[in-house]
Amino acid sequence: MTPPDSATPLSPTARSTIRRLGERGRSDRAELYAVLDEAVICHLGVVVDGAPRVLPTGYGRIGDTLYLHGSTGASSLRAAEGVPACVTVTLLDGIVYARSVFHHSMNYRSAVVHGDARVVADADERLRALEAIVDHLAPGSWTHARQPTRKELAATAVLALDLAEASVKVRTGPPKDDEDDVVDGGRWAGVLPVHTEFGRPKSCELLGAADATAPPHVAARSKIAGSGD
Amino acid sequence: MTPPDSATPLSPTARSTIRRLGERGRSDRAELYAVLDEAVICHLGVVVDGAPRVLPTGYGRIGDTLYLHGSTGASSLRAAEGVPACVTVTLLDGIVYARSVFHHSMNYRSAVVHGDARVVADADERLRALEAIVDHLAPGSWTHARQPTRKELAATAVLALDLAEASVKVRTGPPKDDEDDVVDGGRWAGVLPVHTEFGRPKSCELLGAADATAPPHVAARSKIAGSGD
Repeated sequence: MTPPDSATPLSPTARSTIRRLGERGRSDRAELYAVLDEAVICHLGVVVDGAPRVLPTGYGRIGDTLYLHGSTGASSLRAAEGVPACVTVTLLDGIVYARSVFHHSMNYRSAVVHGDARVVADADERLRALEAIVDHLAPGSWTHARQPTRKELAATAVLALDLAEASVKVRTGPPKDDEDDVVDGGRWAGVLPVHTEFGRPKSCELLGAADATAPPHVAARSKIAGSGD
Repeated sequence: MTPPDSATPLSPTARSTIRRLGERGRSDRAELYAVLDEAVICHLGVVVDGAPRVLPTGYGRIGDTLYLHGSTGASSLRAAEGVPACVTVTLLDGIVYARSVFHHSMNYRSAVVHGDARVVADADERLRALEAIVDHLAPGSWTHARQPTRKELAATAVLALDLAEASVKVRTGPPKDDEDDVVDGGRWAGVLPVHTEFGRPKSCELLGAADATAPPHVAARSKIAGSGD
């Protein structure tokens, strides 16, 4: 498969084509990046003994490559090596209350990536991948925290998944009720927004006084007034 | 497999046994219920043409049965009928900043359910399942909104998954840093809490004046002062 670039449309294959509710499908690669970059966790699906296994995990992105990591002892990550994997990232934006129970829905943005996961062996790519994963979870931590030792690196498996075969679905806006229900009235309808926010940083109790204040790269993520310890 | 009740411990099978970081595994069925009841969406994994497919969807729980629904035209739901499925529910509670990049982590609660999904055919069970799904997404909506018509019911597929084979993992608390890094100091460590909250209800613009105020079962979910339209 030809490597994609940001001008490559999404959904080139049958399984990454949005079949139902086609108006929710998006074909812009920038929307894929936006979903992947905003969410914190993904759900990694692999097939083990013929059955699906879905586990939450962190990830990072560099260009058109998604990186996952885990302990070299983790069976779920080993199971994803060189076999078909599916990584799904979902942002829940709202609960859609309709006039009928049938039209209740959710506003969301989701990305689904299909591909065979590749074990990253190259030392330099491994390090850049780990930096991407750590800075996706905790921006600024790669430079603030202690770098990995040789032993720590040896205990870490890194997997790469090309963003070649992917789909993005987005639902926004109000409920889509039947005309009759709108005319009838008597029932509320609308959207209850869902917000995911960072709270006040809680410093480790083992920190000395000189280190006890959360640094700007942590405190700036918090949206609660007065945060920063 | 013997149906579980709330006294049945979790993790009865190999694939639902937490292998790594065993201290994060939980064996209390009440913890499974708590995770499933608090989250809004799950990630459903099925195997299609030998490859995993992971999609976000809503769900409901009645006792030890998890219910999923979808359009009878949705290929992903059809793919889950009578074949092994995996449903994973994840609540992200915090970003764990460690003194080393290696010990960065997340605080979370996750539930993983394995089983063969059963198509619900019985009309009464279908209705109760849909009520559970709607009221999980939007508590109170089943009685507030218009009930499903025969045609709407015919267009809806309902799947059931027994909570017989399930595992729960929980991570809480501060980073677990190496002793040397704690002694060395000079780096912040702690937890940045992650909160998921409901915002101010946004009423559908097509509502008449008499219906425009969000009713208590919606407004009460919002944690933002002055909500309720």
